[in-house]
Amino acid sequence: MIPDLGRPLLFVNAAQVVTCAGPARARRGAEMRDAGVLTGAAVAVVDGRIAAVGPRDEVERRYASADQVDCGGGVLMPGLVDSHTHAIFGRPRAEEQEMRASGLDYMEIARRGGGIHSSVRDLRARSEDELVSMAVPRLQRLASHGTTTVEVKSGYGLTLEDEIKTLRVIARVSSIVQVRLVPTFLGAHEVPLEARATADGRKNYISLLVHEMIPRVAEQGLARFADVFCEPGVYTVAESREILGAARRAGLGIKLHADELRSSGGAELAAELGATSADHLGAISDDGIRALAGSETVATLLPGTLLFLGKDRQAPARALLDGGAAVALATDFNPGTSPTPNFPLILTLAVSQLRMSAAEAVLAATVNGAAALGLAGETGQVAPGFRADLALFDLEDVRELPYWYGDHRCRRTWVDGRHATG
Amino acid sequence: MIPDLGRPLLFVNAAQVVTCAGPARARRGAEMRDAGVLTGAAVAVVDGRIAAVGPRDEVERRYASADQVDCGGGVLMPGLVDSHTHAIFGRPRAEEQEMRASGLDYMEIARRGGGIHSSVRDLRARSEDELVSMAVPRLQRLASHGTTTVEVKSGYGLTLEDEIKTLRVIARVSSIVQVRLVPTFLGAHEVPLEARATADGRKNYISLLVHEMIPRVAEQGLARFADVFCEPGVYTVAESREILGAARRAGLGIKLHADELRSSGGAELAAELGATSADHLGAISDDGIRALAGSETVATLLPGTLLFLGKDRQAPARALLDGGAAVALATDFNPGTSPTPNFPLILTLAVSQLRMSAAEAVLAATVNGAAALGLAGETGQVAPGFRADLALFDLEDVRELPYWYGDHRCRRTWVDGRHATG
Repeated sequence: MIPDLGRPLLFVNAAQVVTCAGPARARRGAEMRDAGVLTGAAVAVVDGRIAAVGPRDEVERRYASADQVDCGGGVLMPGLVDSHTHAIFGRPRAEEQEMRASGLDYMEIARRGGGIHSSVRDLRARSEDELVSMAVPRLQRLASHGTTTVEVKSGYGLTLEDEIKTLRVIARVSSIVQVRLVPTFLGAHEVPLEARATADGRKNYISLLVHEMIPRVAEQGLARFADVFCEPGVYTVAESREILGAARRAGLGIKLHADELRSSGGAELAAELGATSADHLGAISDDGIRALAGSETVATLLPGTLLFLGKDRQAPARALLDGGAAVALATDFNPGTSPTPNFPLILTLAVSQLRMSAAEAVLAATVNGAAALGLAGETGQVAPGFRADLALFDLEDVRELPYWYGDHRCRRTWVDGRHATG
Repeated sequence: MIPDLGRPLLFVNAAQVVTCAGPARARRGAEMRDAGVLTGAAVAVVDGRIAAVGPRDEVERRYASADQVDCGGGVLMPGLVDSHTHAIFGRPRAEEQEMRASGLDYMEIARRGGGIHSSVRDLRARSEDELVSMAVPRLQRLASHGTTTVEVKSGYGLTLEDEIKTLRVIARVSSIVQVRLVPTFLGAHEVPLEARATADGRKNYISLLVHEMIPRVAEQGLARFADVFCEPGVYTVAESREILGAARRAGLGIKLHADELRSSGGAELAAELGATSADHLGAISDDGIRALAGSETVATLLPGTLLFLGKDRQAPARALLDGGAAVALATDFNPGTSPTPNFPLILTLAVSQLRMSAAEAVLAATVNGAAALGLAGETGQVAPGFRADLALFDLEDVRELPYWYGDHRCRRTWVDGRHATG
């Protein structure tokens, strides 16, 4: 079926059009100082792509017959690109927030069979249909806050069958929700409990990942990336290298959960392997910062997670930015450590806690989010040729996006030029 | 005109009814462990008041002719009581968030004529009509997140005329929005710049507060409380005592901004004077904790403010709670240091950052918020005789209210039994 790309659209009456326009790659250093804010501008969309951006008179003359979309004095900008989520899960784990408040930490909750293992038991017990019906409203909530592209990881299955089931759920949800999904295989999210219980279990599970799961996932085209949780107590640097090597040989892009709570050289590994992104980095070392700054790997920060976990420190965003690394932001939407669908709130934390400017936060959530998914040439900019993935916010100035924190200011979104939410 | 109290209502099909029921006063210590969660319950409302709460069959039999409200499996609870806001202001101050990110602190921004002084210049230049039209949508946003009672302070006028203007705005807005407003006179929010500029200016402004502004505000019935910002660099403990003494003589209730960023004995003063609440307390001393724990004064914590200011510490909520103080939570909604309308996000911070349980956070945002406004016998509980101020959330368990952080889960609110938002 030929998709209905609709009639040309002309977006007018925005207080600001925030273009984020520039090279189709991750931005770094001084390139992140300016998000490209236009006033009096209009945006034309043809066949689902941005056709023109410029002074209203000029664009309106060229696209006189287009259907006009009145932005009502709001801020029009690229739809947000959320490059790190674990959005396919069953039961929410609200009780763990209180357990942490009473003094238990992440690893302790996990050792008691809670944490991720509880989501694994839960997901294994659910059917594909059930997981689809739970995921759809959750992804619609993410979309309702202004997000138009969402990376979604597997990783609560941890068996060949349950990981494939999760990736199939992502594919099915993708055809239902009005938001672009990018699937990532994260069979290496944890070592499953049954593998931890036997002497050879760990080695056998890694062998299963390398020799069966990754090849099968790649062959079936179920994921664009593979990811590993590289952290003391989960996967070592050497194990992560082995797993990601297999992923690369299978033709998958690679990403890495690195140095979230304790530094173990994850950032350095990501740079060494040329990973598309290294994510978390709450405890990254100075060597890790230098490694990322000197690489093409995007440093993806997830400040909501450390907030929700009750930590009083955050990733060293300024050192990364000032060192020249390309920094992205994401929600880490997941049932245990970051159940927020509100990407603009992550921008608030970026400014208030990570000391980023509003422009840096906006570029980190658009252009650099896209780069963290290998989509820097496709989405994240309001510039000719890019997909018409747009978000309209009920704000007069883009700096108010991080400012009115916790609010729900997104009025409407479009994906590929089609009305998606609002 | 006789208000239309409508037909009796029967709320059914809530997954949980969270009653917060108990004594009509602030709760403390072990009294805050249980928020009173009922399943299979219904709530009857007659003449704007709660008439009955109990097992559905029983309540339904007694109120068979009432109009049924289907809660659709959500969580029904008391509308949130936000006991500390500065919701009447003009221009948002988004640029200051970036200034702080770049290293300037609150006092430094204020010394540069920014901060509160910028809101004062702005408010003085605006008409009453203009301020009404700016405040209405902001209060509606607060209401949309589940809040049914909001305390609103003056304090960006700092002249007799502009303070009275602000309080009149509150009264006018109160008749427009579907949320109960409680007005507080905060002429002692700062020492105005023009008073700081002359030798006697400070003394004269305090004299104006004590001898003209407070008596006039009380006489005109424009405020229920008076408040003072007691903090090094703003008002001293002795000055605060003098101003609040005048407020009490004029028949106003008293509240105090105390020990927000530096300890100066504000909490001790609040306890000494029997203030209804002492608010902020980010830097409260051990003596201050003991003083509040041994008093009837509610300790109102505003964790959003310290988060938004980029601080890495919070008020010692556990020490206050475990010491036996009555703790309330509020948004501190204001244009400089806490522009969030999302009260549930404050509950998230209470659990994740202040290490409160979900039940403690819920009681702090309902019963104890009401107590901090002298309304403990009126609102904040779903119990017979209380006003039918209700919020319905799209959640299955009340613990999910702090959990799905930054989301917008409030489906509908009622004030005095009348449908207010959603």
